[in-house]
Amino acid sequence: MKRLVLATRNQGKIAELRRILADGGLEVELVGLEEYPQVGEIAETGLTFAENALLKARQIAEATGLPAVADDSGLCVDALNGMPGVFSARWSGRHGDDDANLDLLLAQLSDVPPDRRGAHFACAAALALPSGTERVVEGALHGSVIERRRGENGFGYDPIFVPEGESRTTAEMSPAEKDAISHRGRAFRALIPIVAELL
Amino acid sequence: MKRLVLATRNQGKIAELRRILADGGLEVELVGLEEYPQVGEIAETGLTFAENALLKARQIAEATGLPAVADDSGLCVDALNGMPGVFSARWSGRHGDDDANLDLLLAQLSDVPPDRRGAHFACAAALALPSGTERVVEGALHGSVIERRRGENGFGYDPIFVPEGESRTTAEMSPAEKDAISHRGRAFRALIPIVAELL
Repeated sequence: MKRLVLATRNQGKIAELRRILADGGLEVELVGLEEYPQVGEIAETGLTFAENALLKARQIAEATGLPAVADDSGLCVDALNGMPGVFSARWSGRHGDDDANLDLLLAQLSDVPPDRRGAHFACAAALALPSGTERVVEGALHGSVIERRRGENGFGYDPIFVPEGESRTTAEMSPAEKDAISHRGRAFRALIPIVAELL
Repeated sequence: MKRLVLATRNQGKIAELRRILADGGLEVELVGLEEYPQVGEIAETGLTFAENALLKARQIAEATGLPAVADDSGLCVDALNGMPGVFSARWSGRHGDDDANLDLLLAQLSDVPPDRRGAHFACAAALALPSGTERVVEGALHGSVIERRRGENGFGYDPIFVPEGESRTTAEMSPAEKDAISHRGRAFRALIPIVAELL
């Protein structure tokens, strides 16, 4: 069975992609970065999700000699011209501080009325082969940013994001409910036929 | 002499526009909002500089029965899709806290390399007449955001902004030097012939 490296050391993310690949009927052995200590920290210096996903997948394919999949995602707020975007995880200037990032976004939007709080979660998923062949696809989940956090599931901006046609935030959904509609789920499902073709 | 109301209680801004109008050969009596206590606080709820400038000028013309001029300005950073933009004065979530706004912007851009730190100051200047006639023009000053603050003049993001073709920040320039090239100066100078025509 072909081996595919996923650009993460997070077991939850590996398990999630394994489910999506299996649902898509794709038989590959998916492994995380923990098996490849030779891959160092990859700086996400791109200004688009696609740029970051591609640079991560490319570096891993080069370092491991195996096909690699990477993703980058974030929240794009219409009133902020699509930001935080690729800066989602470091919006407050403190990388990975979900509470600080979320509080800052709410404060910035405090004067923005409900009908102008549209937003979408976006994800780019990239495949890179050691030969240099690359592909990237995107997935999105449209909705709006509410004024106060609700829900305990998920991470990042989930407690303040309500998808279109929903009354709950993505932090009030079960992981399976969120997977079914999420930007990451959509991007990875779009990547499956490409992986199947190129591997 | 025709009277024109400027949407500010800041004497420095009134004096600045008086100089620009006089340089442009326009004879009007320019007064600030301090003479019109009936004009209350105007919320800047727009998502563009032009929208905010127009809504301020419009409300003042309606409340005073006189022609009114208003402006809105901010810093637009390329890597942030043009933000902070209309959120410049409240970027940190604390309105008017220049230090917090500037520190947050520097932290957000900390991983952005020098060749991707392009930015411009933008200003929209609007004229509204009691008859309902409205005009808006824009001015810009292009440059880039540096990594550490320099200079004591100006306000807002001046200490971290270097105009194209300059080595100094706008906070290292004299007020007159800055006026000559600034986004506000350019927008107001563009508004002079329109004021002359419509008054």
